[in-house]
Amino acid sequence: MVAWNNLDTLASYEKLTKTSPVNLVEVMSGEGGAARVKKYSTPMAAGLTYHYAAKAVDDDTLQALTDLAKEAQLADKFKELYNGAVINTGENRLVLHQLTRGQLGDKVQADGVDKRAFYVAQQEKIAQFANDVHAGKIINASGEKFTTVVQIGIGGSDLGPRAMYLALENWAKKNNTFKMEAKFISNVDPDDAAAVLNSVDVAHALFVLVSKSGTTLETLTNESFVKDALKNAGLNPSDHMVAVTSETSPLAKSDDYLAAFFMDDYIGGRYSSTSAVGGAVLSLAFGPEVFAQFLDGAAEEDRLSTNENVLENAAMLDALIGVYERNVLGYPSTAVLPYSQALSRFPAHLQQLDMESNGKSVNRFGEPVDYPTGPVIFGEPGTNGQHSFYQLLHQGTDIVPLQFVGFKNSQIGTDVDIQGSTSQQKLCANVAAQIVAFACGKADDNRNKNFEGGRPSSIIIGEQLNPQALGALLAHFENKVMFQGFLWNVNSFDQEGVQLGKVLAKRVLAHETDGALKEFSDLLNI
Amino acid sequence: MVAWNNLDTLASYEKLTKTSPVNLVEVMSGEGGAARVKKYSTPMAAGLTYHYAAKAVDDDTLQALTDLAKEAQLADKFKELYNGAVINTGENRLVLHQLTRGQLGDKVQADGVDKRAFYVAQQEKIAQFANDVHAGKIINASGEKFTTVVQIGIGGSDLGPRAMYLALENWAKKNNTFKMEAKFISNVDPDDAAAVLNSVDVAHALFVLVSKSGTTLETLTNESFVKDALKNAGLNPSDHMVAVTSETSPLAKSDDYLAAFFMDDYIGGRYSSTSAVGGAVLSLAFGPEVFAQFLDGAAEEDRLSTNENVLENAAMLDALIGVYERNVLGYPSTAVLPYSQALSRFPAHLQQLDMESNGKSVNRFGEPVDYPTGPVIFGEPGTNGQHSFYQLLHQGTDIVPLQFVGFKNSQIGTDVDIQGSTSQQKLCANVAAQIVAFACGKADDNRNKNFEGGRPSSIIIGEQLNPQALGALLAHFENKVMFQGFLWNVNSFDQEGVQLGKVLAKRVLAHETDGALKEFSDLLNI
Repeated sequence: MVAWNNLDTLASYEKLTKTSPVNLVEVMSGEGGAARVKKYSTPMAAGLTYHYAAKAVDDDTLQALTDLAKEAQLADKFKELYNGAVINTGENRLVLHQLTRGQLGDKVQADGVDKRAFYVAQQEKIAQFANDVHAGKIINASGEKFTTVVQIGIGGSDLGPRAMYLALENWAKKNNTFKMEAKFISNVDPDDAAAVLNSVDVAHALFVLVSKSGTTLETLTNESFVKDALKNAGLNPSDHMVAVTSETSPLAKSDDYLAAFFMDDYIGGRYSSTSAVGGAVLSLAFGPEVFAQFLDGAAEEDRLSTNENVLENAAMLDALIGVYERNVLGYPSTAVLPYSQALSRFPAHLQQLDMESNGKSVNRFGEPVDYPTGPVIFGEPGTNGQHSFYQLLHQGTDIVPLQFVGFKNSQIGTDVDIQGSTSQQKLCANVAAQIVAFACGKADDNRNKNFEGGRPSSIIIGEQLNPQALGALLAHFENKVMFQGFLWNVNSFDQEGVQLGKVLAKRVLAHETDGALKEFSDLLNI
Repeated sequence: MVAWNNLDTLASYEKLTKTSPVNLVEVMSGEGGAARVKKYSTPMAAGLTYHYAAKAVDDDTLQALTDLAKEAQLADKFKELYNGAVINTGENRLVLHQLTRGQLGDKVQADGVDKRAFYVAQQEKIAQFANDVHAGKIINASGEKFTTVVQIGIGGSDLGPRAMYLALENWAKKNNTFKMEAKFISNVDPDDAAAVLNSVDVAHALFVLVSKSGTTLETLTNESFVKDALKNAGLNPSDHMVAVTSETSPLAKSDDYLAAFFMDDYIGGRYSSTSAVGGAVLSLAFGPEVFAQFLDGAAEEDRLSTNENVLENAAMLDALIGVYERNVLGYPSTAVLPYSQALSRFPAHLQQLDMESNGKSVNRFGEPVDYPTGPVIFGEPGTNGQHSFYQLLHQGTDIVPLQFVGFKNSQIGTDVDIQGSTSQQKLCANVAAQIVAFACGKADDNRNKNFEGGRPSSIIIGEQLNPQALGALLAHFENKVMFQGFLWNVNSFDQEGVQLGKVLAKRVLAHETDGALKEFSDLLNI
């Protein structure tokens, strides 16, 4: 049995706080720096590698982190999770998102079924449906093919699938697996749905309504919006809509949908990209084979994440270094900086994944913790960010740890040679340069041009952003966040913090307000 | 003459640190909260209002902030700036972005010309050009109209204009002023340019190349990318390109462009949306009249920002409260949360504006400062963020001050009534609810469902996001950042922190590397 203890009760954490801080400028300069780059890396799935030479760690720190991983029983806790323990204690639920992409340990039985078989069956049902749509077997009332898929969902039903779609859109076009354009409606702002609907040929659009409970107000509101548009175009909404929901939701057996695909309570919204939530829209957009490749990359990375050897487990190591930076070094935020335009919304997905999972002040038992937990996560693609907020990252008064991602090859392959190098080479040169600039800095007598350095970063490097690599990247961060939750002893799988706002919003709409809430409601004309 | 002193040398700042902290839960609950909402607001331009009832301030704090504004000579410093003083001392430059939208004080003479006349002339030249394009007087080689405008630029030449375009796209479509679709190429990642070019009918596209110096590597590289695409389509690039640059740049008098529109060294990239940098693309997209309305809103807000009375000057007050939160209360980041899908990229623009301006560790004289300066800025539109990172904002271990923006009316006007309320009402109900939830919290015996509250926010409320309101909103934040720079005594108008990375990237591309830089270059196949 594993023991769930607060981080600050662990002897190994106490020891970690007493390790000597590493001077990044010193260790990353000269040939010592080269030796670190060669030494401090860990292979990941799908040809990715996690490099942490530019993190403020050395062999002593790594030993302390290894001890911490052991005392905190990170590998054992993950094993309990994938073997079907009730890890989400707050909601009394299993945590099974890894099972949507592979079987890691024992068979998991729940709700009277083998859950792996359940997820596989949903994936197969989606694959069949998508193939039928692509083959023209499932068509609109005029007998024409659907050309566009529109996902209606919010939070985890939007950010992850949208980020994954954008990540693979150009890859699929280049590799001739692109089947249907995808669009997304998420915000309850009526201008969101209206603008998307204005840009879509609704007669040839298939709408995927995603709500686990079948009661998400934003999503049901946007469904009505879409149904109005379909009716106004003289179309029958039920010919154009599919549902992704839980088997027990009101949507599950409704005649309003062409088909329903299921997820369950063991898949948190922010962990649902590899379930039917991502599966429907991505299989329709790129074909089920591409979605299967994406799952394969995630599954392979999950297997690597079970390794008890910290130095061979990139997700665990990344998690440990992050906790060291947050709790020992005291850095309050982390920037995610992919050098890939295709990953433009990947930071927004990680922002949800990380901040919603670990932005907690109480431990698994509901007791307040005395240490910082999840950091603020933000980011934009490089090189764009270099011309924007990097100024603060380089010369601001706070240190922000950085998470770079880079690929040797572009997705489309069209390039131009200017001043002796391609755009892809310039892109890669920039991320290499940034790592060293942040770590080593550069002394200048003009203090305005002085760079102190000492700003830690890691980089995940891959050959190309393809479906497998994207799956591996996603699973890496999901598992990193999970391990950090274990270290902080918080429940990373509930989100009670979003409830109060919902309750008060309902009260506003029912005009049951007083005090400041009434005043603000009046100011906003509600 | 104004005196430039560090924040921590000011007696009024010392006094501010000794004011009693306000208990937000107490003051925002009950009828006291209602009274605060009525009392603590300041009108802005274009019908906007800045509400700060949910900020942790009271009359004592506000008096201390007023004293600080006076001792720091905020109004006088702004006056020096708009009257043409060399405020950007690091680069020995005037700071004239406000002058692109109106004349606030004395005439400003520089480079031998009246600068206001210069900016007006550029705006008129752009207006004439845009009108000629729209009227079919400026056409492609086949005698056909241009239908799309593509901006090529990075950093300030991208984020601001792109955010403004998205903010007004649906408004313009609804109000029949939409003229041309706009797209943007920014990243040196070849997949960015390739994907945009694949989505555009280049024969009917006009490209706006934006680079003040005419030497920005990313932008020139993407220009070559575009020229290749035009040539491959059998077109003459110079029939399809215009330049926005400084008069002294190599682009200014080149035959490669249909026209050139000028800005100058007194307009920082991140402050350039109201100059020709935003003017060309926005005038082509929406017509010059809409761009002029946008400038009018900004100019009106600038005038309000000159007010010496802090309580009547929203930008100054917002700046002061922000410094109080950053330096006295010790909060390291700020979230920008517009309840408007049209403002989806406005937070990314503010992230650049704020972090690049005030992410500095030395004062105007190059001396290290002993206090925190610019915070990390991040954000996404509500209600999307509610289903994402709000968990951490409500229940995380760190307090993150919040900047909400909301409008009573949508832009498109298409809406749906579900459960007795429209989507627009739901949107507004949510932001009202969030303000109160963050401030007041809610006690619960189940600590997992407990909300401590005490999380400060402000909100800017407007009637509708139209061009004037957008201009006012932009100017508000530009002026807030400027006032904060004055308070921290940093130069908000240079960006030396972006230089080292550029130098090292050039070295990588020239293969002049050693140590860690060589290793990372090899890993990335450069």
